[in-house]
Amino acid sequence: MAHPHLDKVKEYLLDLQDRLCDGLAAEEGDTAFREDSWTREAGGGGRSRVIENGEVFEKGGVNFSHVFGERLPASASAARPELAGRSFHAVGVSWVLHPRNPHVPTAHGNVRFFIAEKEGAEPVWWFGGGFDLTPFYPVFEDVVHWHRVAQETCAPFGDDVYPRFKRWCDEYFTLHHRDETRGVGGLFFDDLNEWEFERCFAFQRAVGDAFLEAYVPIVRRRQATEYGERERDFQAFRRGRYVEFNLVWDRGTLFGLQSGGRTESILMSMPPLAQWQYCWTPEPGSPEARLADEFLTPREWLEEAEA
Amino acid sequence: MAHPHLDKVKEYLLDLQDRLCDGLAAEEGDTAFREDSWTREAGGGGRSRVIENGEVFEKGGVNFSHVFGERLPASASAARPELAGRSFHAVGVSWVLHPRNPHVPTAHGNVRFFIAEKEGAEPVWWFGGGFDLTPFYPVFEDVVHWHRVAQETCAPFGDDVYPRFKRWCDEYFTLHHRDETRGVGGLFFDDLNEWEFERCFAFQRAVGDAFLEAYVPIVRRRQATEYGERERDFQAFRRGRYVEFNLVWDRGTLFGLQSGGRTESILMSMPPLAQWQYCWTPEPGSPEARLADEFLTPREWLEEAEA
Repeated sequence: MAHPHLDKVKEYLLDLQDRLCDGLAAEEGDTAFREDSWTREAGGGGRSRVIENGEVFEKGGVNFSHVFGERLPASASAARPELAGRSFHAVGVSWVLHPRNPHVPTAHGNVRFFIAEKEGAEPVWWFGGGFDLTPFYPVFEDVVHWHRVAQETCAPFGDDVYPRFKRWCDEYFTLHHRDETRGVGGLFFDDLNEWEFERCFAFQRAVGDAFLEAYVPIVRRRQATEYGERERDFQAFRRGRYVEFNLVWDRGTLFGLQSGGRTESILMSMPPLAQWQYCWTPEPGSPEARLADEFLTPREWLEEAEA
Repeated sequence: MAHPHLDKVKEYLLDLQDRLCDGLAAEEGDTAFREDSWTREAGGGGRSRVIENGEVFEKGGVNFSHVFGERLPASASAARPELAGRSFHAVGVSWVLHPRNPHVPTAHGNVRFFIAEKEGAEPVWWFGGGFDLTPFYPVFEDVVHWHRVAQETCAPFGDDVYPRFKRWCDEYFTLHHRDETRGVGGLFFDDLNEWEFERCFAFQRAVGDAFLEAYVPIVRRRQATEYGERERDFQAFRRGRYVEFNLVWDRGTLFGLQSGGRTESILMSMPPLAQWQYCWTPEPGSPEARLADEFLTPREWLEEAEA
């Protein structure tokens, strides 16, 4: 069966992967992304691009994949578990950046598109995606910048889009066993097919295209801030929380592992180094305590900035 | 309702926790276990004992808990999901040791007992438990010693017990997304109520009591082996796999998080430090390559030792 929608989305995603890698590599010194192409036995494959031991990015990846198969895993759709078991195509680009400097936040983004098909039924398609920021030593103006770009990205699609997808992001990126968010959020959407295809696709492109504008200025602002062992320690501790979220709660990771995705590409999201200490909590009033105390519960950043 | 079975098991478990901590602390220098008692809002509580930054044990914990509630989580029983939703009691001791020296294997063990009740139905009880070993630089004779203790522990309960629970351990402690076992196995059993209560309880005690005999001789043998940065690096890399198993595949961790257990006690199983590198594989023929090549697929250690 021909999939004109799929072909268009795929073309956009491959180009997005190129542009993201170029934009991020431009912040680096000599370290480049390395590329691995892979195929999946059950159908499809991908193009992974990973950077390690860079001056700016200690570890990061920008991965494209197109997988298809006979049975859609349940984790693929939040809202419509009844689609599980249909034949499917899934295309997406996912990216994670783990900067070396603890003053530069970790960032993650993803845009994806699904088609689920069944004999005698209309094909069902939907988009998902978003981007979210995970600072260690958060700076209020950075968070406001991040959310302002998110809001401007959503504005042409309706006034309710930013608040809805901002709230969804806060809810999705929650460590329920810790009662804290992973970071300061951003945008998250899934099962998006409430508009016609062209409008949904335009929204996905807007989200993908906005990432560098949201992230790179923050990287540049914080990259020169000095740090020492204390900050690196705290970064490793918080990266442990990142691992907990990704492996326990992230439906995307689960989908990848359930659908026989390529493990090394899925788990390139893991930080280079993480640590766990029993019952460790930062000293009250310290910069480390400020993170959870002030930044890891949902806030209306843009309203606060205007107040 | 009175629970004479529960009271007896609980008494044993509290004593086991004491003996395990004493036996392990005896291998340490001056570092002692610290104790935290906690209560659980929905019913029950526990007594966690954790050691950190010891000379021998970089991190470790021996945790007792007794939780009860109105609705048994599905993850509590492998074989009988129909019991989910009954009121329940769960008591257990879990322990994990992360030694500092990469030549000393990581070890884990657990013994647990459940009662699930429903108006108008017989209470259902069962035992679970086992112990498993996760070396970094495995030594064949250590693995044989470990499994010999396991076999001797099982022997009084029937000739088929060791082979069954040894195989179950290999199956349970598998990282399916890596197609490798977590380590060299040991014993694992769940839903055990095929014998009368006293015999099941005796088996649980035999397993709990055997751990120090299985583990301490290995600690003593390998504790003095020299190591450097290379071995510590590989240890941190393999500890990443330990994290992956515990957070993605371990039903015990899932049960703890689903049943509103105490997060810090459940996740004391996390290693102190873990690292992830994209597509890293050890040099062929190196001691690091030997681990996965020779030790992370199920083997009949005792038959090989006798051959």
